[in-house]
Amino acid sequence: MQIGNDVKSQMPDANSFAEKVLAGNRLALARLLTQIENETTLGFDVLDILFPRTGNAHLIGVTGAPGTGKSSLVNQLALAFRKKERAETKRVAIVAVDPSSPFTGGAILGDRVRMRDLAGDPGIFIRSMASRGSLGGLATTTSGIVLALDAAGYDVILVETVGVGQAEVDIVRLAHTTVVVEAPGLGDEIQAIKAGLMEIADILVVNKADKPGVEITERALRSMLQMRKDQGRHVALANRIKPYPDEVNVDPSWFPPVLKTVAIDGKGVGSLHNAIAQHYNYLSDTKSIILKEQARLKYEVEMLLREILVARWRESIREHEYQLALTRVVQREISPWKAVKQLIEGR
Amino acid sequence: MQIGNDVKSQMPDANSFAEKVLAGNRLALARLLTQIENETTLGFDVLDILFPRTGNAHLIGVTGAPGTGKSSLVNQLALAFRKKERAETKRVAIVAVDPSSPFTGGAILGDRVRMRDLAGDPGIFIRSMASRGSLGGLATTTSGIVLALDAAGYDVILVETVGVGQAEVDIVRLAHTTVVVEAPGLGDEIQAIKAGLMEIADILVVNKADKPGVEITERALRSMLQMRKDQGRHVALANRIKPYPDEVNVDPSWFPPVLKTVAIDGKGVGSLHNAIAQHYNYLSDTKSIILKEQARLKYEVEMLLREILVARWRESIREHEYQLALTRVVQREISPWKAVKQLIEGR
Repeated sequence: MQIGNDVKSQMPDANSFAEKVLAGNRLALARLLTQIENETTLGFDVLDILFPRTGNAHLIGVTGAPGTGKSSLVNQLALAFRKKERAETKRVAIVAVDPSSPFTGGAILGDRVRMRDLAGDPGIFIRSMASRGSLGGLATTTSGIVLALDAAGYDVILVETVGVGQAEVDIVRLAHTTVVVEAPGLGDEIQAIKAGLMEIADILVVNKADKPGVEITERALRSMLQMRKDQGRHVALANRIKPYPDEVNVDPSWFPPVLKTVAIDGKGVGSLHNAIAQHYNYLSDTKSIILKEQARLKYEVEMLLREILVARWRESIREHEYQLALTRVVQREISPWKAVKQLIEGR
Repeated sequence: MQIGNDVKSQMPDANSFAEKVLAGNRLALARLLTQIENETTLGFDVLDILFPRTGNAHLIGVTGAPGTGKSSLVNQLALAFRKKERAETKRVAIVAVDPSSPFTGGAILGDRVRMRDLAGDPGIFIRSMASRGSLGGLATTTSGIVLALDAAGYDVILVETVGVGQAEVDIVRLAHTTVVVEAPGLGDEIQAIKAGLMEIADILVVNKADKPGVEITERALRSMLQMRKDQGRHVALANRIKPYPDEVNVDPSWFPPVLKTVAIDGKGVGSLHNAIAQHYNYLSDTKSIILKEQARLKYEVEMLLREILVARWRESIREHEYQLALTRVVQREISPWKAVKQLIEGR
């Protein structure tokens, strides 16, 4: 039948799929990313094949509170990495993670706006993601997508997230270099977020530097950094927050710079681009990059274990037993804790 | 030894601990919440005893993007529920969840500011939480804390979260009534968040209604709501997003009102208070509250299952086997997916 053949031709086997991605076929890459997002067996099979070809890209996390203009900054950074006058032109991928709309199943903004500036450049690949429903699912999916882009030969992968919540922190854990974006005049609640984000920053950016209050924001950031340094905490915190604290001894000689940018007209983006390159060199020189990579992969194994264990357990349990336990909880006979204990221990 | 006795006196057995909490002992309650936050056995044991005494409180989730001023609004709402001139004075608990600083281990703002207004009122209990590191841990911990406050006789429990990310959505799932707070002029990225939050709102509030742009924000919200109603989506979405969509058939007759407030001087808070009371009556009249409660408890069982399954598996596996798998991944011999498969299936 014709239909069967069509379906088959759209679903190549893992090996030829992987080959196409490695050969730079953009359509195959886009399809692979969809497979990964949908957590299909084919997606994982292709990643298995691609995995030994990964580890070459510079992963840059760009995070910050809503309203800081980080999407525009990522846009400008991508252009900076692509600039022809630089000695080395990089292939750039952008992964826009949008956990702010876990319900929509798709990113709302971003793609179209960005496409206008970056469209038509074969050295740029853009992917938007929306949070899936599953706990931790977003982080593992993003990780798979980054690996696929890495294998496909993108030298720089910019991962943009809203800097709030656990899933976003997990995603930032992917990055070699974490850029935290701030902006002046965002109010008290944003300040609170800032305090959390500060701790994971390799580079701090005050965007919208043409707005009033930029000096105050800059000064506040610098004094927070200095205070932490004086207390010896900038090292301790870096170790505490980066994955697997005991194993990653980040060289303490990197002190996060504070840069000012105006993303909408590109001011200061050149300096930011340089700072990112410097951080990459620093990571390479101190061998920190190897430690970071190892920690990241270990973390990934942990995340996957979680997801798969739960899925398997649910397959194994008898449905009526599960429903009975739920009923008893709903009738407030036993607490959720006791119910779970009984379900797992079978007593 | 004296020390041993002291420690013992600070750690009452579960039954007497529960009794004190039920008797309205605030210190015992505060201690219990700490036990729950630290996920101790004692904490869970006390919750087991308290659980049949829960189910009386009205759980109100207040969520919104950073910068909307929802903390002030929660503050004012608490005062409104406490007002002496009302026929029925309620005991009010506030749970401030702050997932924006997963690193600090404690909430940064909030408590001190709030304490100034609410301190000394024995009918108000305030608790701040910060996100713990574990996936999903925040939601289950918050759930335990809400149950404890419920058992302790608080009639109204206001749970305040930053409205971004999966953990926060899970927390909102706890609520009977979800209030989504907006504010004028927060920019494009906030708009994107708004679209996600809209879908879970029972009541929409435009706070900072004295600021320019309030009419635009209000009109945008109303037209989004109307559009969804015209498409028949306000029901469908409510069902899709609330937990266990197939089981919760929320009566479609509730249409989210859009209210304007100026939290800092209390304007419009009375109307918001009335709208919340109306929503509670609506839930009771249509029996939706029972369905919501059931869905919430079932969801809780699911969350706990996840956490406990992973913890148990980690205890069961041989450490060297696990380390060997990690090493192979780090050397990029096998992918994380293959490693996890091999670890779980033992092949």
